[in-house]
Amino acid sequence: MGRKPLRSTDDAQPGGTPSPEATEVPEKRPGSGRMGRRTFVVGAAGILGAGVLKGLADPAHAQEAQVIVPDDPTKVQGPTASLVGGRSPFEQPERFLHPQLTSSRTPLQELHGTITPSDLHFERHHGGVAHIDPDKYSLLVHGLVERPMVFTLRDLKRFPSQSTVYFMECSGNFPRNASEDTLPQQICGLTSQSEWTGIPLSTLFREVGVLPEATWFLAEGQDAAVMTRSIPVEKAWDDAMIAYGQNGEALRPENGYPARLFLPGWEGNASVKWLRRIELSDGPFQTREETSRYTDPLKDGKVRQFSFVMDARSIITSPCYPDRVEPGWLELRGIAWSGRGRIRSAEISFDEGATWHAADLQEPVLPKAHVRFRYMWKWDGREATVLSRTTDETGYVQPTQQELIEARGVGTRYHLNPITGWRIRTDGSVVYRTEEWA
Amino acid sequence: MGRKPLRSTDDAQPGGTPSPEATEVPEKRPGSGRMGRRTFVVGAAGILGAGVLKGLADPAHAQEAQVIVPDDPTKVQGPTASLVGGRSPFEQPERFLHPQLTSSRTPLQELHGTITPSDLHFERHHGGVAHIDPDKYSLLVHGLVERPMVFTLRDLKRFPSQSTVYFMECSGNFPRNASEDTLPQQICGLTSQSEWTGIPLSTLFREVGVLPEATWFLAEGQDAAVMTRSIPVEKAWDDAMIAYGQNGEALRPENGYPARLFLPGWEGNASVKWLRRIELSDGPFQTREETSRYTDPLKDGKVRQFSFVMDARSIITSPCYPDRVEPGWLELRGIAWSGRGRIRSAEISFDEGATWHAADLQEPVLPKAHVRFRYMWKWDGREATVLSRTTDETGYVQPTQQELIEARGVGTRYHLNPITGWRIRTDGSVVYRTEEWA
Repeated sequence: MGRKPLRSTDDAQPGGTPSPEATEVPEKRPGSGRMGRRTFVVGAAGILGAGVLKGLADPAHAQEAQVIVPDDPTKVQGPTASLVGGRSPFEQPERFLHPQLTSSRTPLQELHGTITPSDLHFERHHGGVAHIDPDKYSLLVHGLVERPMVFTLRDLKRFPSQSTVYFMECSGNFPRNASEDTLPQQICGLTSQSEWTGIPLSTLFREVGVLPEATWFLAEGQDAAVMTRSIPVEKAWDDAMIAYGQNGEALRPENGYPARLFLPGWEGNASVKWLRRIELSDGPFQTREETSRYTDPLKDGKVRQFSFVMDARSIITSPCYPDRVEPGWLELRGIAWSGRGRIRSAEISFDEGATWHAADLQEPVLPKAHVRFRYMWKWDGREATVLSRTTDETGYVQPTQQELIEARGVGTRYHLNPITGWRIRTDGSVVYRTEEWA
Repeated sequence: MGRKPLRSTDDAQPGGTPSPEATEVPEKRPGSGRMGRRTFVVGAAGILGAGVLKGLADPAHAQEAQVIVPDDPTKVQGPTASLVGGRSPFEQPERFLHPQLTSSRTPLQELHGTITPSDLHFERHHGGVAHIDPDKYSLLVHGLVERPMVFTLRDLKRFPSQSTVYFMECSGNFPRNASEDTLPQQICGLTSQSEWTGIPLSTLFREVGVLPEATWFLAEGQDAAVMTRSIPVEKAWDDAMIAYGQNGEALRPENGYPARLFLPGWEGNASVKWLRRIELSDGPFQTREETSRYTDPLKDGKVRQFSFVMDARSIITSPCYPDRVEPGWLELRGIAWSGRGRIRSAEISFDEGATWHAADLQEPVLPKAHVRFRYMWKWDGREATVLSRTTDETGYVQPTQQELIEARGVGTRYHLNPITGWRIRTDGSVVYRTEEWA
């Protein structure tokens, strides 16, 4: 499956000039980053002998700059051990930036397995990334409680902890009317997965003595948007966490460092980051982000409010645009997930959904988690369409786009999880299977 | 639990001068990095208002340099979304470097859960880190086979794939005669865990038609050491992989990019990185790295050779040196693992091993994988010792140091997995429980 990019970008490399000795010019994959960048590989002479010197323009990749790639690595002593490792200069996955720089999307098409590296986890913020001094951090829990309390980060870390793998998905994770040159990253890169560490929210609720009349709570962030959302108390008694760890390390700043609310399987926005206050109440607070936004307009003029659960969804991440495949055996690969629990099945269709074929699910299949699915398929070289759909343990089946529109009309931007797929042309090129949102 | 470092280092910060307005000087935790570095936090004036500017001296952390940490993050718009995320300037975990820079150790004491971030995975190499152009990569499989074949990286990626969480541990992962000021990172930071993606080695062995008389194979790396090890063919029919993915992304260079052998549960050295050649044979090759090294001298003058399997082991990672704890409830946290399969139990002793108490194991308990264990304990403020030991599903029990010495003598450096622990002094300080290797 061709992972070769199809076009280059035009940005010159600071500190480097295209060299006539250049032996190769790797080009950017389209769409894999908003800011284009060209990577030059120039012939390197001198004490290290024949080889190529890879320099990168982006300071975020300073670690990878100036790496020598010898023609024969067995003849050249390599670099020594380092305090913090970097990526190969040949592997530079990037998030896809929203034009307003308020979100970035995980490069699903470049990932294997189920874990999302923390520096590629999608981000979405309403007032930029808050940077917080952990020694000054505190969390107030008050309202309908017996004992209002303030917890420092150190307090939170003393409680019994848990580590669980969960996906996190933004409810606005589908571009309507996307064109053929669309990447998985653009279709649903607002979902990512980590091993989250923290404490059950129920621990804090027992600590403060939540009163029986408390049915909702407000979660408030310490960012410039002062993000606020209302959450039913039941979620705290179920599986809500206060998370301070992500993939082994501390939360990343764009994911709520030093501590965030984490509501497994629910829309990302409700898992308030940089959490500073929880207020128990006898009803929802009707905050800006649950009235003006994060509600789903329906076709009858009404709206669905507090539509927290992320419905089951799947996507084939390989092959995909802009791959070019060859006839013969291919492994179709993708991910499936559901906010309601475990994935029961992922299926592939080659006939626009008339018939479906069960894909293999990678074990262990964890609840409220991305599951990797795979299906071996022999492509005969004729034009083909490949679709995926998933069913979760509650029996919920991922809908077609038409079924979604029939249920909700065309006005909503949230909680869109239609079946999607790819067209493979006779020349092996792969494009997004477009479908007009109407 | 005090995570405050105990001493600072002396290196001046390039590009910055200690400021009289400095409001805080976070100091390095001892031992968390070989090269000392001071981080300055200076009062920042100007358009962003009151706040602190964090600048870091290490180019590896360029992403985190110049981050504004406002006094009140709700009053200042934060940074926009980014292509690749960075860590909080307050969280700078580092590997611990061997003086000869031939290895680095994972900061286990700073990690939660079970996944090791890929840039903190331990590294060990014998000729430096090989940097390889994936388009020039190939793997030759030959010897006692029906059809010698060469596979490109693209070929390898076309085969049916798998993604599995496994630990990887170096067999030289125990410092004999360590002092009280020793971190978990120094005691056993040569173990790390990732979700590895690749193909079963058995797939390639079927492809080339391994002959019945083939009982061993040579794995050869493309690094400057041309690392070579002999492996029994049975491991290929069991669970050996050719891995090209690590925690979702491509392998990191120090972990064998673009492809390595991966032998679940076996000593790391045998999982040859930068794999370029596999030769099937009717016996082991007796290479340098399995004769002069990676054999275990016994007390009778003989040696254990081809001692591949990593025996069950555990360590408490919190609290540990140099924490300072307070009387009251503490959660003892650690990891346990076994190269033979699943962990059956992890236990804590407060009386030098006379009695043991079962810790909780975080689900899912995966085979040949780090498992997080936790035990709630109320410290009464008196001097105490906490030890951990683990038992795997085969019934193997982690031995005491004396049991290890009785079995093998004092001459070996490999496959040492003794029970270890920490002393808590009456002032709350935590030090390594030393034990003379004799």
